[in-house]
Amino acid sequence: MAHIDLGNDLPGIRGPMAYRPETAKPLNELAEVLLRDDNNTLSRGERELIGTYVSSLNDCFFCQNVHGSLAQHYLGCDMPCIDAIKANPATSMLSDKMKALLSIAASVQKGGTSVTAVQIEKAKALGATDREIHDTVLITAAFCMYNRYVDGLSTWAPEDRQFYVDRAPRRAAEGYVEYDVHK
Amino acid sequence: MAHIDLGNDLPGIRGPMAYRPETAKPLNELAEVLLRDDNNTLSRGERELIGTYVSSLNDCFFCQNVHGSLAQHYLGCDMPCIDAIKANPATSMLSDKMKALLSIAASVQKGGTSVTAVQIEKAKALGATDREIHDTVLITAAFCMYNRYVDGLSTWAPEDRQFYVDRAPRRAAEGYVEYDVHK
Repeated sequence: MAHIDLGNDLPGIRGPMAYRPETAKPLNELAEVLLRDDNNTLSRGERELIGTYVSSLNDCFFCQNVHGSLAQHYLGCDMPCIDAIKANPATSMLSDKMKALLSIAASVQKGGTSVTAVQIEKAKALGATDREIHDTVLITAAFCMYNRYVDGLSTWAPEDRQFYVDRAPRRAAEGYVEYDVHK
Repeated sequence: MAHIDLGNDLPGIRGPMAYRPETAKPLNELAEVLLRDDNNTLSRGERELIGTYVSSLNDCFFCQNVHGSLAQHYLGCDMPCIDAIKANPATSMLSDKMKALLSIAASVQKGGTSVTAVQIEKAKALGATDREIHDTVLITAAFCMYNRYVDGLSTWAPEDRQFYVDRAPRRAAEGYVEYDVHK
């Protein structure tokens, strides 16, 4: 049960978003521009993967399954593939550039000052642009917020991971701004 | 020097916000509704104080001075008073309710699952409403984002703390949405 009376039984972040729509609006707009906007050289799948990895590091069950299922949907892979990346990006099938960006994400998750100049130089040498590094840092920072919002209020989440996989195509079609949190 | 070429020499979060205005928009709108909206039983000073305390726990020099100076401005106190609260809220002159909310903030800063039912019950017994607990959790979560954005990109910040105190009245008058990040 959530720490406060949300007045609804919606899962995960949708509970507090329905409870407080005034703050839900910019939270959803941030997700939309960061994770879905087409003016980006990181694909939607790559951006969802960064969010999934950070949610995994923050141990947020709801977020890592919502966004892991979206990453899976966009990248055309399966749950074991996403789980392997979360467990150890360095040994996964990802490109060296994505591995370098996930290394930066892991540092930002610990705290902003954990990022080193060496990590940044390595990512740049492997082809990461300044904008891609910027977005990696901000996606990571944003998930450090979303994850804490979800778990800090002790919201509930469906335990069956297939629930999230089944919902991903609709979420991918609707995006973060237009969807109805009540559905 | 920042990890990426921001194309400007603005301090703190204003650098990446000018670099990427598409993401700055929802980031500022979130700060505006969370920290300044009048439809809130927590005062602007109390909300800025939560952000200051979290920025201190995250060791973000820029954010704890920007928002500490705003808290100081709204609450009509001085820098030593704000510093004493950051150092140990439990022994400060704050109300018991605010102490309980800052205790929740300290847990959320560590991670969402660190918040205990006992902490929540204590805050409620001391008069905290569900909405106040919600906003404390989300303000804390949001500063865990802002702090990581500022430091994860290694932005620069003026070292003279008086700089922030001098700017606070104008920032308080302008708010987070209407101000020009370039000024």
